[in-house]
Amino acid sequence: MFNIKPLGSEFDEAIQQKIDTKTKPLGALGDLEGLALQIAKVLGKDNPQINNPKMMVFAADHGIADSGVSIAPSEVTAQMVRNFMAGGAAINVFTRQVGLELEVIDCGVLQPFESESGVIDQRLGAGTGPIHKRAAMTLGAVKQGFEMAAARIQQHHQNGCNLIALGEMGIGNTSSAAAIMSVLTGIPATDCVGRGTGIDAATFKRKQMLVEQAILLHHSELDDPMQILACIGGFEIVQMTGAILAAAERGMLVVIDGFIASAAALVAISINVDCRDYMIFSHLSDEKGHYLMLEFMQAKPLLNLGLKLGEGTGAALAFPLIQAAVNFYNEMASFEDAGIEI
Amino acid sequence: MFNIKPLGSEFDEAIQQKIDTKTKPLGALGDLEGLALQIAKVLGKDNPQINNPKMMVFAADHGIADSGVSIAPSEVTAQMVRNFMAGGAAINVFTRQVGLELEVIDCGVLQPFESESGVIDQRLGAGTGPIHKRAAMTLGAVKQGFEMAAARIQQHHQNGCNLIALGEMGIGNTSSAAAIMSVLTGIPATDCVGRGTGIDAATFKRKQMLVEQAILLHHSELDDPMQILACIGGFEIVQMTGAILAAAERGMLVVIDGFIASAAALVAISINVDCRDYMIFSHLSDEKGHYLMLEFMQAKPLLNLGLKLGEGTGAALAFPLIQAAVNFYNEMASFEDAGIEI
Repeated sequence: MFNIKPLGSEFDEAIQQKIDTKTKPLGALGDLEGLALQIAKVLGKDNPQINNPKMMVFAADHGIADSGVSIAPSEVTAQMVRNFMAGGAAINVFTRQVGLELEVIDCGVLQPFESESGVIDQRLGAGTGPIHKRAAMTLGAVKQGFEMAAARIQQHHQNGCNLIALGEMGIGNTSSAAAIMSVLTGIPATDCVGRGTGIDAATFKRKQMLVEQAILLHHSELDDPMQILACIGGFEIVQMTGAILAAAERGMLVVIDGFIASAAALVAISINVDCRDYMIFSHLSDEKGHYLMLEFMQAKPLLNLGLKLGEGTGAALAFPLIQAAVNFYNEMASFEDAGIEI
Repeated sequence: MFNIKPLGSEFDEAIQQKIDTKTKPLGALGDLEGLALQIAKVLGKDNPQINNPKMMVFAADHGIADSGVSIAPSEVTAQMVRNFMAGGAAINVFTRQVGLELEVIDCGVLQPFESESGVIDQRLGAGTGPIHKRAAMTLGAVKQGFEMAAARIQQHHQNGCNLIALGEMGIGNTSSAAAIMSVLTGIPATDCVGRGTGIDAATFKRKQMLVEQAILLHHSELDDPMQILACIGGFEIVQMTGAILAAAERGMLVVIDGFIASAAALVAISINVDCRDYMIFSHLSDEKGHYLMLEFMQAKPLLNLGLKLGEGTGAALAFPLIQAAVNFYNEMASFEDAGIEI
């Protein structure tokens, strides 16, 4: 469906050689060295540069939220989107600090925003269906979501952007992400469901039950990633998945945030495994299933700060480390440059 | 010796209240929330700001290096200092990126630098004595090192600086740091000694043996932190210790880098435990003993990237996270501001 070029190993030796002759002991920059290798493979081995990096925050509502799986009602999705537009949320603070341009995309919040709000309209509906009772959306909506996300990525790419970071906002979306994780990894739902932003024991139990119920209800249709998105996905998860695939197709780096963005990454990989090469995993969140999900994707995240906020906050906080990998690769002197014999 | 004000808890509730009413679930910013609390306690609860942050890199040579405990000879200390001054080292790249002003202090490299080199002259000698054979330095040198470091901190403080980060360069200094760690924590030297920047098995064994020998040689004098520094310390470790204590005395934040800076932190705490309140631990390094050393100080580092470079690189890489803690505390909207009822 997406024509993604797997990263070849033809320049690995040259890139590694460049890393190894920097004025530092072999491997002394730890995880930043593997990151520099990956970035140089994606953006080019000679003077790679991150250009016009974008934080894309995808917002949508979830029918399952009406059954009480979160600390907050669905209304908070829209309220937080307005907070994003007013500049008062954590993601505003962090993107301002690190130099990521922020955009907020309405993929299907309950009520649409006024056009003057600044929110980008890529609505697939007014909240998904409750996944434990019926499909989240139609297969047509999934395809439409992919197309909208791809068009947006194309636009960014045309504007010179070569790195996107993905964040989200959507009350109830950890339930959908946990269901997706369970289906795609084979890990029991009880181990995939976490406490989201801090639910109590009773809510946690209900959330586990409803996620199991959703998987059971749709089990005969869950043999295809697009069907998985239609049955148990979310509008923002669909568009994040589409954005990842479209960005990889255009040779852009994709920074993955927490549990929900990682679920989209998981779906994207199940659609076209080659997109994995373009992903940078920013952090391990406090959400219970995230560790196992990252392990399943063989992903070692850059940060582990116990974040459980979403919005793209982990991706924004990791961005300076990504920039540091680029900078040491481009700017550090070699032993020869510095006249050091070691 | 240093008049350090322990941080009181009088404003804790007000600060925590401010953190808890930000537009995010309780605790959702994980470790950044505790960091914001600490910073607000040190720099003030109303609009705390990090001003003129400085990266101080302390360089010195170590007599024990002649016995082959490192991958590189002592000459590399001076060569790397020249690399710092030319702007080509990792610490140059990272401090430029994150906005830390870098200064390099010669605490006792084998050969002095020309005055036009830009290296700050705070020399205590031309390399320490080999600690497995005799004392590293006199007690007078330790005191002089403290005074020089304190004078430098005073100058920064007068220029409005309220955060210093500490890095170092010194071939052989993990040996000294491991010996200090063993003495102050009671952890056997074999568990404190690591592979530094990547020594082989034979060198590792010799290093362990020499560190044990150093501790044994001086054991009757190691009951006092100043004596510990004199017997088994290093000129850069002495001045880092003095800088930590002087900075805490003036109510400045101190960002600790890796294994060697942490050893200085350990000595500083043993001299005056109240300085611990002012410390931010930036990262867990790849050096074997660092985990146990941080655990001993009940320190949870911000990053864990497998770095083993020193220079202050981990502290520089963590600086954006420290800034992020300040920024979310100052800039995020409260639920009331944003009109969100949750």
